[in-house]
Amino acid sequence: MNEPMLAGLRILDLTRALAGPTCTRMLVEMGAEVIKVEPAPGGEMTRYFAQLRGHERSLYYIQQNRGKKSVCVDLRNREGLALVKELVQHVDVVVENFKPGVIAEMGMGFEALQAVKPDIVLCSISALGQSGPLSGKPGYDYIAQAYSGVTSMIGDPDQPPYIPLVGIGDVSTGVHGALAILAALRYRDRTGRGQHLDIGLLDVYYHCHEMNVLLYSGSNGQTEPRRTGRHVTYVCPAGVFRASGERDVTIMGFLHHWKDLCAAIGRQDLAAHPDWDTDAKRLTRRPEIISMIETWLQSFADADEAIKVLEAHNVPCAPVLSVAETVNEPHLRERGTVRTITDRVAGTFDIPGFPLRFSDFPEPLALEAPLLGEHNAAVLIEVLGKSRAELERLQAAGVLIEKPC
Amino acid sequence: MNEPMLAGLRILDLTRALAGPTCTRMLVEMGAEVIKVEPAPGGEMTRYFAQLRGHERSLYYIQQNRGKKSVCVDLRNREGLALVKELVQHVDVVVENFKPGVIAEMGMGFEALQAVKPDIVLCSISALGQSGPLSGKPGYDYIAQAYSGVTSMIGDPDQPPYIPLVGIGDVSTGVHGALAILAALRYRDRTGRGQHLDIGLLDVYYHCHEMNVLLYSGSNGQTEPRRTGRHVTYVCPAGVFRASGERDVTIMGFLHHWKDLCAAIGRQDLAAHPDWDTDAKRLTRRPEIISMIETWLQSFADADEAIKVLEAHNVPCAPVLSVAETVNEPHLRERGTVRTITDRVAGTFDIPGFPLRFSDFPEPLALEAPLLGEHNAAVLIEVLGKSRAELERLQAAGVLIEKPC
Repeated sequence: MNEPMLAGLRILDLTRALAGPTCTRMLVEMGAEVIKVEPAPGGEMTRYFAQLRGHERSLYYIQQNRGKKSVCVDLRNREGLALVKELVQHVDVVVENFKPGVIAEMGMGFEALQAVKPDIVLCSISALGQSGPLSGKPGYDYIAQAYSGVTSMIGDPDQPPYIPLVGIGDVSTGVHGALAILAALRYRDRTGRGQHLDIGLLDVYYHCHEMNVLLYSGSNGQTEPRRTGRHVTYVCPAGVFRASGERDVTIMGFLHHWKDLCAAIGRQDLAAHPDWDTDAKRLTRRPEIISMIETWLQSFADADEAIKVLEAHNVPCAPVLSVAETVNEPHLRERGTVRTITDRVAGTFDIPGFPLRFSDFPEPLALEAPLLGEHNAAVLIEVLGKSRAELERLQAAGVLIEKPC
Repeated sequence: MNEPMLAGLRILDLTRALAGPTCTRMLVEMGAEVIKVEPAPGGEMTRYFAQLRGHERSLYYIQQNRGKKSVCVDLRNREGLALVKELVQHVDVVVENFKPGVIAEMGMGFEALQAVKPDIVLCSISALGQSGPLSGKPGYDYIAQAYSGVTSMIGDPDQPPYIPLVGIGDVSTGVHGALAILAALRYRDRTGRGQHLDIGLLDVYYHCHEMNVLLYSGSNGQTEPRRTGRHVTYVCPAGVFRASGERDVTIMGFLHHWKDLCAAIGRQDLAAHPDWDTDAKRLTRRPEIISMIETWLQSFADADEAIKVLEAHNVPCAPVLSVAETVNEPHLRERGTVRTITDRVAGTFDIPGFPLRFSDFPEPLALEAPLLGEHNAAVLIEVLGKSRAELERLQAAGVLIEKPC
């Protein structure tokens, strides 16, 4: 077995909740050493989410923190904070997602870190960014999403919009942070220079606008992108259709797929019909086309039968799977998209698998989520070179905390 | 000025549409050299999208391909394909997002690339992945989203779901690909080993499930995550609320924010009330709470006035901005989240800015989108060492194409 890709990198992880821990989760899954500092006495906030197995072990914490080392320190204690600062000398990267300004108030702003480790990379993750008039506002995924214009593009035009009940902005922001870190390390390796990285959910959401910003600006404000329901705005047909048994089906039948769709639904007469043969023309008759497709779908007793016909004609389509269905979908199982893990305390359950696949590493690393403060001793003694007596003194003083879950 | 972070890296870019070009866009924005191969005679498909300025220059193509070099080659011609293969010897990374299997049919599968460049990194981006029973299906963002269970989590429970009208899966997948590439290069630099990377939208969407997969599995199937409308499922209040003038406002008033929200709306009596003081209790009276908040919001003539009161009480909140509004929002302008660029053909317009911020590079690189085949000569002569006579022969034969837009 090769050493993992990021072997030799050491990360000091001051993050909590979702975006920050996703950043360091990506790095630990590729073999970086991640030392997670958790605030005494209780540890990171997510240790109290999704305690589903009749005891205090959080499935949420496990999902986000497998493979990390846990050091639980009283950060309001002078000695505790000094230990964390001392760790900076021994790491390549510090990642934090406090509210902007807090890390500097703790005496660990970028300049302070540079003073102890000149080539340090500090990655700051936040909702609205480290600068600008809104940066001081309290932020969450959906707050950034609202400011980005993304929320405005979900739902029907005459009703309030919807929010996707997944952590899509937080998770993507964590991945953006991991990318920025590896780029900054490549630069550090060549030049010896550290950097401060500023990664915001708002910026991340905003660059997901494929067409919207350029359409508005490029048309000099003539085109104002707005939510238009369950169907793509610029081509047709493309969207979510209701089939039999309340099963919904996503179908992409635009451009060259139109003729395949026509063949699938037995309307070859429309494939090259001069009133139907371009997306622009079809957009003018969208309700009619949606109705035609849904009538066809509902002529089958079962949506899966209709999907088979669409697939036989090579029409891009998919059943809208519920979360429960995804867990049992063979394709997701075979690829490890859904992955079963076993935690020493909470037992066996499923989580989303690591989303990157590397040919030299066909099997994911065996990683275990830490107990609270599990690595206090290892980090203090092996990384910081403290004595066991010093460790015991700090434990007795409550500066370091350990718990069996 | 320092050399940019990824100076010295050279990428062969065979991608089209959104996910693949976003991957190489991230790399070029950090200073990698990206050689984009476009199929003769017309070039990449997106050159025909969003031609908004009265001529054939595509704003979409510009947004996604600034800074890349364009080589336009007839890939169905033996000599043309040979040129592309020859380029592999001179690059660090090849990125492609053809349908799985196509790159191998072109004679450029991973083993074939390794034969000419043993430490090559090949990044393959697709909708459903390179392996598994569904990998052969034609794929788009929304197809992967449907299979991932993400679509099922957007909308009302008794209606078909909605799709966000942004490129969130494609863009995030491109960023995941860029992260995988930098990790693989770090490993290559240490070990001399190339790799084949398999990045799928389905895997990317799936790991955005923050709570859903573990709640289903961790509860042994007792909890089935489903879409529940405009409000977060597990805490309350948190979601999208309608204010005056059809303005929608996102408010996060759960946990410790509840008492601040109560103060903001003049209901301090509920802050510590034993029927309202936890998220679990508030979830049981969600319709009542939504109604109370919306009534309060609508008591203001203007949503902005209500937002000021919420902000004064430190309640996380945001107006749901339309895309048109984001373009003029001072915070987004100040941070460069929305960025004005000038193209030599299409003129001046706005695009989403590069989402990563680095302290050593406060200004984004000046990048220009290529004309079709603009770099045919530069790449053939400077990279491949061909003669000008050879270049002219290939141009005359139509193997290489150039166009002034």
